[in-house]
Amino acid sequence: MSQKEFVKPVGLETPYRLFNLGGTAFVESKQGDDLDIMPASWNCPLDYDKMTVVIDSTHYSRKLIEASEYILLAVPGMGIQKEILYLGSVSKNDNPNKIADSGLKFFTLPDCDFPLPEGCSAWAVIKLIREPHNEKTYDLFMGQIVKAWADSRVFSNNHWHLEEGPDELRSMHYVAGGHFYAIGKRVDVTL
Amino acid sequence: MSQKEFVKPVGLETPYRLFNLGGTAFVESKQGDDLDIMPASWNCPLDYDKMTVVIDSTHYSRKLIEASEYILLAVPGMGIQKEILYLGSVSKNDNPNKIADSGLKFFTLPDCDFPLPEGCSAWAVIKLIREPHNEKTYDLFMGQIVKAWADSRVFSNNHWHLEEGPDELRSMHYVAGGHFYAIGKRVDVTL
Repeated sequence: MSQKEFVKPVGLETPYRLFNLGGTAFVESKQGDDLDIMPASWNCPLDYDKMTVVIDSTHYSRKLIEASEYILLAVPGMGIQKEILYLGSVSKNDNPNKIADSGLKFFTLPDCDFPLPEGCSAWAVIKLIREPHNEKTYDLFMGQIVKAWADSRVFSNNHWHLEEGPDELRSMHYVAGGHFYAIGKRVDVTL
Repeated sequence: MSQKEFVKPVGLETPYRLFNLGGTAFVESKQGDDLDIMPASWNCPLDYDKMTVVIDSTHYSRKLIEASEYILLAVPGMGIQKEILYLGSVSKNDNPNKIADSGLKFFTLPDCDFPLPEGCSAWAVIKLIREPHNEKTYDLFMGQIVKAWADSRVFSNNHWHLEEGPDELRSMHYVAGGHFYAIGKRVDVTL
């Protein structure tokens, strides 16, 4: 069964929650047929419907992002851990066949211009809010979430319930050198 | 035994790693004797030695931060989950005794002007990089890590080894409404 069958739209009131666990994200960008994907640990909600992400000027993705002014952010899971590391280790500057070589698979949705990577728990289309000073000085990009989806086995009604889905969808939190931690157990705190 | 005995300085080459797991952080601020602490999920590395954090203008902390231009960022663990939720639920605008009422404990270090909250895995003193447009428009603050420490049971030689320390030090990743996930198992990926 394809993951696509579990993917449901997420409302745009509080879509930051898709990224609030703080794991490594995929940044997908494209201009015409030219597609790139890179993992970015330095992604963060900026508001209920806005995100920041740091994208170094040396990355192939950077020119696609600045030209198209849209990115797809996604939250990759444990099940595609090798794909995450490969996509973060190889630049499309060096290997134009990077994405095929990574083994990452995709599905499509009728209302999304980006191919959506399989093995993620959440996806969001982000329209850049251009802030040239932040981009030039800090490699920091800001954007508005304009569409969002999640795998309904682990996220629905604006809440994560990772414990009800496959462990392959648990987010990956990067340290360095191929060393990650997966997100762990649910903790419900009451005062 | 006090946690203080395990706390070691962290070098300033790659101190972002203290925050790279993406968990909820404490933001501590002070002006004279006026101290505030609030949890902030929206914290993120901006560079190897720089951080961003979103601090809404309604927070009591905000005026302390703008006046002193320094904050302490810390990574609270599972063992102080009620303190995290309390400090995020009660404003010092409403309860001037908030910090004492939270039950949070502190230790001091000779080379740190901030009291350091116990039950955290990492602490960093951040000097603001003032960017008035970002502060006013997005409530986004940027800063340079100028001093850092970690609990050596779970972080040393610039790497996390949470699996070797007490689970009480595992980072907490917020969803909403008292619902968190703790960071989970270590995953070492090779290509």
